[in-house]
Amino acid sequence: HSEVWKKGGRLLSALMAINIALFGSVLVSSGSLEHVVVQDKEVLAFLVVLMLLSVFWMIFQFYFSCQKNAVLYKDSHAGPVWLRGGLVFFGICSLVMDVFKIGYYISYIDCESPIKLIHPMVQSAFIIMQTYFLWVSSKHCVQIHTNISRYGLMLILITNLSIWMAAVTDESVHQTRDLEDDHKIVHSSPAGSHDHKEVGGAHEHTCQCSNHLCHIFQTGYYYLYPFNIEYSLFASAMTYVMWKNVGREMDDQVAHHSRLSLCFYFKNMFAGFLIGGAVLLCGVVVLVIYKVKINLPDKLYRAHILFYSFNILALALMSLGSLAGSIIYRFDKRHMDAHKNPTRTLDVTLLLGAALGQYCISYYSIVAMVATSPGELINALNLVYSILMIVQLTLQNTFIIEGLHREPFQDAAPQPEKGLIFANEAVAPSLAHNETPGFSAPAPEFPAKPKQSITEPPWNLKRRMVQEISLFLLLCNIILWLMPAFGARPQLKNNLERNFYGLYVWTIITNICLPFGIFYRMHAAASLLEVFRMS
Amino acid sequence: HSEVWKKGGRLLSALMAINIALFGSVLVSSGSLEHVVVQDKEVLAFLVVLMLLSVFWMIFQFYFSCQKNAVLYKDSHAGPVWLRGGLVFFGICSLVMDVFKIGYYISYIDCESPIKLIHPMVQSAFIIMQTYFLWVSSKHCVQIHTNISRYGLMLILITNLSIWMAAVTDESVHQTRDLEDDHKIVHSSPAGSHDHKEVGGAHEHTCQCSNHLCHIFQTGYYYLYPFNIEYSLFASAMTYVMWKNVGREMDDQVAHHSRLSLCFYFKNMFAGFLIGGAVLLCGVVVLVIYKVKINLPDKLYRAHILFYSFNILALALMSLGSLAGSIIYRFDKRHMDAHKNPTRTLDVTLLLGAALGQYCISYYSIVAMVATSPGELINALNLVYSILMIVQLTLQNTFIIEGLHREPFQDAAPQPEKGLIFANEAVAPSLAHNETPGFSAPAPEFPAKPKQSITEPPWNLKRRMVQEISLFLLLCNIILWLMPAFGARPQLKNNLERNFYGLYVWTIITNICLPFGIFYRMHAAASLLEVFRMS
Repeated sequence: HSEVWKKGGRLLSALMAINIALFGSVLVSSGSLEHVVVQDKEVLAFLVVLMLLSVFWMIFQFYFSCQKNAVLYKDSHAGPVWLRGGLVFFGICSLVMDVFKIGYYISYIDCESPIKLIHPMVQSAFIIMQTYFLWVSSKHCVQIHTNISRYGLMLILITNLSIWMAAVTDESVHQTRDLEDDHKIVHSSPAGSHDHKEVGGAHEHTCQCSNHLCHIFQTGYYYLYPFNIEYSLFASAMTYVMWKNVGREMDDQVAHHSRLSLCFYFKNMFAGFLIGGAVLLCGVVVLVIYKVKINLPDKLYRAHILFYSFNILALALMSLGSLAGSIIYRFDKRHMDAHKNPTRTLDVTLLLGAALGQYCISYYSIVAMVATSPGELINALNLVYSILMIVQLTLQNTFIIEGLHREPFQDAAPQPEKGLIFANEAVAPSLAHNETPGFSAPAPEFPAKPKQSITEPPWNLKRRMVQEISLFLLLCNIILWLMPAFGARPQLKNNLERNFYGLYVWTIITNICLPFGIFYRMHAAASLLEVFRMS
Repeated sequence: HSEVWKKGGRLLSALMAINIALFGSVLVSSGSLEHVVVQDKEVLAFLVVLMLLSVFWMIFQFYFSCQKNAVLYKDSHAGPVWLRGGLVFFGICSLVMDVFKIGYYISYIDCESPIKLIHPMVQSAFIIMQTYFLWVSSKHCVQIHTNISRYGLMLILITNLSIWMAAVTDESVHQTRDLEDDHKIVHSSPAGSHDHKEVGGAHEHTCQCSNHLCHIFQTGYYYLYPFNIEYSLFASAMTYVMWKNVGREMDDQVAHHSRLSLCFYFKNMFAGFLIGGAVLLCGVVVLVIYKVKINLPDKLYRAHILFYSFNILALALMSLGSLAGSIIYRFDKRHMDAHKNPTRTLDVTLLLGAALGQYCISYYSIVAMVATSPGELINALNLVYSILMIVQLTLQNTFIIEGLHREPFQDAAPQPEKGLIFANEAVAPSLAHNETPGFSAPAPEFPAKPKQSITEPPWNLKRRMVQEISLFLLLCNIILWLMPAFGARPQLKNNLERNFYGLYVWTIITNICLPFGIFYRMHAAASLLEVFRMS
C-alpha cells in the first residue's frame, strides 16, 4: 500500500510544482517584455513570497526531523562532499552579490520600489538557511510526513528554479539591450563610449546615483551573477535527489560505498593536469583579450578569429580525449553498476537534456553557414566550430555516461565487514550462470559478487589513462563554462547568424539555448569529477 | 554483459535520434521564416530522404524478422487494437490528403518545384508501408540485430516526428498569415473578401491554377491536415514502445493480460454516453457557428461569447467528473499494477508533458487578464475559461494516471494460455528469490498474489461509475480536440492577449504551445479509452 501512496504523492507534488513553475516562468517572461505592464517588481515579489515559504518549510523540516524514525536511511550517493562544497562556495559568492545589491539599491532608496531592497535581504536569509539545510540533510531518506515533505521539497526546488529563470532572463535582457545599443552605435557613431551602457543597460533609473559607490556595487554584482546561477542549479539538483529519496527504503549493503580519498589521486596526475591546465590558462588569456577587443569595432574581427581558433583547438583535443576514453572502456573489465541511484539518473538526464541547448545553437549555425556558402575565413571557422561542438558533445556524453555506470575501482584493502578475500578467480567464471533471461536488471545479486577488479593490479595503465582524460576534460569544461558565463558570447556579436535569421529570431534562439549550454559545461565538469573519483 | 550493451545501444541510438531531430527542427523552423533563404523545398527534400531511408529499413526488418529466434517475446500491452485501428483510420485519411496534394501540384506542375510532387508520392508509399509494419510487428520484442533495430526504429520515430513538426509549422504559418491578413483587413477595409486568402495563404504562386479542381484539392487537404498530424503521433508512440521493447525479455506471468471485449461494455452505458454525446453534439454546432461568424467582423464578439460559454460549461462538467472519479478510486479495493510497462510509462509522460502546452497558454492568459483588470464580459469569460482549463487538466491527469495504474478488473474466468508467449517457465519461480528490500519494484512477486478483485462481484456500482465517467470524459476530450484541430482558436482571434503581449510574442507562444494542447486532447481520449477498458 505504501507503493500506491508513493506514486500518488509524487504525482500530486509534481503537479503542484509544474503549476507554480509555469506561473513563475510566465511572470518572468512577461516581466522581461518592455511594453507589458507586468514588470520586475511583480517578479521580485513572487520570488520573495516563494523564498519566505521555503524558509518556513525548512524550519518545520528541521523541527520534525529531530524526531526518531524520521530518517532511518541515508543515500550514500546523494550530496557528495564536492557538491556540497561547491554549494557552499557558490552560496558565499551569492551572499556577496546580495550585499552588493543591497548597497546599490540603498543608494537609490529614494526613487526605487522598496521590493528591490527587500528582495536581496530575503535572498540572503534564504541562501544561508538553504545551504545549511542541504549540507545537513541532503543524504536523508525522509520516512515520516512523507507527503508534506514532498510538497516542501518541491517548493524549494521551484524556488531555486524560479531564481535561476529570473537571473537568466535578467542577464539575457541585459545582453540583448547591450547588443541593440551596439547595433545603434555601429550604425550611428562608431566611436561612442560603451562603458556606461554596459553597466547601466538593465536598470534604467529616473534619478542619478547619489554617491560614487553605486557603480562599483553594480559592476560587482554583474560579475557575481554566474555564481548565483550555479548556486540555484546546484541546490535544485540536490533538492530533486532528496525528493526522489523521500520514503525510499534501502538495504544495508547498497549503502556500502567505499569512500575514496581525493587527495590520493592528484599526486600521480601529470599529463591530464598539464594539458588541461595549459588549455585553461590559454582560455583565460583569450577570454580577457576577447572581452577587451570586442568593444572596439576595428578589433572585432580579429577577436572573433582568436576566439574561434582557440575553441576549435580545445574542442578537437577534447573530442580526441573522449574518443580515447570510450575506446579504453571497451577493454575495461569492470562490471556495470545497475543499482538504483537517483543521483546518477538525474546526472544522465541533465547531461543529455542540457546538451540540447548547445546542439540547437550549433545546428542553427551550421544551416546558416552552409546556406550562405562560407567563403570568408570567419564563416569557415564558425562552421568548423559548430560541427566540432556537436562531435565533442556527443563523444563526451558517451564517455561520461559510460563512466558513471561503471562500478568504482576498489584499490583500498578489502574492508572486513564485506567479507571479501583477495583471490577469488575461481568464482568469476560462475558469474555467467547467474544471468537469468527473464529479469533484465540483476541488481540484488551484485553486492554478494566478488569484485573482479580486486584481482587486477590496483594501479594499472587503463585506469590511469581514464583518470588523466577525465581530469583533462574537467579542466577544459571549466574554461568552456567560464567563457560564456562571463559574457564571451560570439554568437551574439559576430553578425553572421544574426544577419541570416534576423535580430529578433536569433536573439530568442540564443537567449533560450545559451543558458542550457552554460549549465551543460558546469554539469559536465561535476560529472567528470565523479568519473575521475570512480576510476 | 547483455545489460551493458542494452544501455549503450539505447544511448547511441538516442543520441543519433536527437541529432537528426534537432537538425530537422532547425531546418523546419528556418524554412518557416520568410526572409531566410532556406525554404520549404529543402524541408521537403529532407523529409523525402528520411522517409525513403525508413522504407528501406522496414523492408530489411521484414526480411530478418522471418528468421527464427528473431521475435521470442511479445509485449501484450503494446499496440492494442484500438491504437492500431486508429492508425489505420488516420492513415487512410492521410492517403486521401496525399492524393489531394498530388492532384493540386499536378495542376501547378509547370511553375512549382518537382519536389512538391515527389513528396506526397513518397509519403503515400511510406504511410502504406508503415501502417502495415506497425500493424504486424508493434508487439514484437526484437531479439536479434538488436542494435541495428534500435537505430532503425529511432529513424522511423524521427521521420514521424519530423513530419509532425513540418505539418504543425505549416499550419501555424498558415494561421499566422491568416491572422496578419485579418489584421490588415480590419485596419483597411472591413468588408474585404476573406475566402481567397484562407485557401491561398500558405502557398503563394507566381502562376494561376489551370483548372477549377485545384481549389477543391486545396480545401480538401487543408481539412485533412489534422488527421495526418494525429497519424504521425500515433505512429511515433507505437515506434517508441517498440524501441523500448527491443531486446526485452519478459517472464510468462507478466504477460497474462485478459483481453476484455469492448462490445460487452457499451450496452450498459447510459448516463456517460448521453451527457458526453450531448456535449459533443453541442460542441460541433458551436464549432460550425464559430467558424462561420468569426470571419464577419460584426459577429466576432458574439462568436467569442458563445465559444467561451460552451467551453466553460464543458470544462466545469469535466472537472466535476474527474473529481468524482478520483473520489471513487479512494474506495476502490483493486491493487496497483507495478509491472514494467513501457506503454504506460510513455502514456503518463506524454499526458504530463503535453499538458504543459495548454497550461502555458492558460497562465499567460490569466496574467494578461488579471493585469488588465477584467471589466468587460469577454475578459471575465476568458479568465474563468483559463482557470477552469488548468483545474480540469490537473484533475483529469490525476484521474487518468491513477486509473492506468490499477489492475484490470477480472470478470471473465481465467483464460488458458494464449500461446503467444514462449518464455522459459523454469526461470520464473526462481525470480522471487532474487528480491531484496533495496529494489523498489516488487514486480515478480505480484502475479503470485491472489487477485482481490476476483472476490468482488464483477458488476458493481463503483466500477460502473468509473466507466461512465471515462466515457463522458472521452467524448468531451474528442470535442475539445476537434475545435482547435479544425481551426477554432480564439486565443489568436480575440485580440485580448495579443494586445497585451504584442502580436509577435503572442504568435510565438501560441504557435509553440497550441500543437501540444491539441495533441494532449487526442492523447487523453486514447488514455481514457484504456481506463474505460480496464475498469
